[in-house]
Amino acid sequence: MTKYINVKTVSRTDMIDITSQVQEVIDRTGITDGICYLYVPHTTAAVTINEGADPSVRRDIMKALSRLIPRDAGYSHMEGNADAHIKSSLVGSSAYVFIEKGKILLGTWQSIFFCEFDGPRHRRVAIKARAVRAFRSKP
Amino acid sequence: MTKYINVKTVSRTDMIDITSQVQEVIDRTGITDGICYLYVPHTTAAVTINEGADPSVRRDIMKALSRLIPRDAGYSHMEGNADAHIKSSLVGSSAYVFIEKGKILLGTWQSIFFCEFDGPRHRRVAIKARAVRAFRSKP
Amino acid sequence: MTKYINVKTVSRTDMIDITSQVQEVIDRTGITDGICYLYVPHTTAAVTINEGADPSVRRDIMKALSRLIPRDAGYSHMEGNADAHIKSSLVGSSAYVFIEKGKILLGTWQSIFFCEFDGPRHRRVAIKARAVRAFRSKP
Repeated sequence: MTKYINVKTVSRTDMIDITSQVQEVIDRTGITDGICYLYVPHTTAAVTINEGADPSVRRDIMKALSRLIPRDAGYSHMEGNADAHIKSSLVGSSAYVFIEKGKILLGTWQSIFFCEFDGPRHRRVAIKARAVRAFRSKP
Repeated sequence: MTKYINVKTVSRTDMIDITSQVQEVIDRTGITDGICYLYVPHTTAAVTINEGADPSVRRDIMKALSRLIPRDAGYSHMEGNADAHIKSSLVGSSAYVFIEKGKILLGTWQSIFFCEFDGPRHRRVAIKARAVRAFRSKP
Repeated sequence: MTKYINVKTVSRTDMIDITSQVQEVIDRTGITDGICYLYVPHTTAAVTINEGADPSVRRDIMKALSRLIPRDAGYSHMEGNADAHIKSSLVGSSAYVFIEKGKILLGTWQSIFFCEFDGPRHRRVAIKARAVRAFRSKP
């Protein structure tokens, strides 16, 4: 069964910390050791893992993406959001994290971010989680 | 066991919709709820998920990548395809999708694409799929 | 249970082949058919799969990334490593590989690389692996 997180974005481009929402989904599964899979069912958004402590990191990431992929650059796609599609494939529509003792295993500075490239919109992140049994270590 | 999809590319750079081929592999597994893992065993190709409805999106993605990573830019690698290797690491050699009721769970506009960066070639995409049991929801 | 690979990087940016270390972890699990998940718990590093035979490919990838994302570009983040955070989200903090007959299933030229964008540092790669049963092929 797939669970969903709802994300409401408020500007055209944004990175929204969804770590605690993902943790809540994991809590409900009762899985203590496993993998949590995130999937963005949108073509102008993405998911990434990066620093959560300093909000300026998010701004730098979004600005760098917009510098590399400008909003207007003679694109063929006529809906005015070709840049958002391109960013989506660069950052990626999925990310997984490990679950250890019921908690997302993140590095000290890591958070999970929903990336909006063509907002504001109501978005969703699909989530599946599964247990991973301990290694049967060889002698 | 790993299954393979064969992809024949016809130009140097291309994005080929492999959604229906992936669905056929899933059909044969009999998995109704799970995860389907795609893996590209090539270093000058990739897999991504993006809009399938308007072919101009694909063209914009490939053009943007070629603008960012030109074919000739004083690379060290002498085989004339350094750009393709770089694009491969930017877009990524793997992608997973969820399986719900036996079908790939995709957003309205999403399709799965094989990305060719150094074609034309005969390529393969390796696929594994596995069932994910329903969450044992906590009270 | 999560296993860890230790990686010592010696320069600010580097790509280090960790394929054999990943294979050693898989060997200890006794898994013959499955998936091996890699996860980088750092926000200024990444993991990717690309050509291992010619070291110039690695150099070209790192140089292209540094050309696209210069070290100094008026970033907001004040620690001098905003570029490393941006590269991390472009290349990605995770990658999975398939396990077949106990060995990592890689294309002829593929190796697994730890990408350092803000070294030199002592780094870790977290690893989980799990068996995937054979498809129950439908008639």
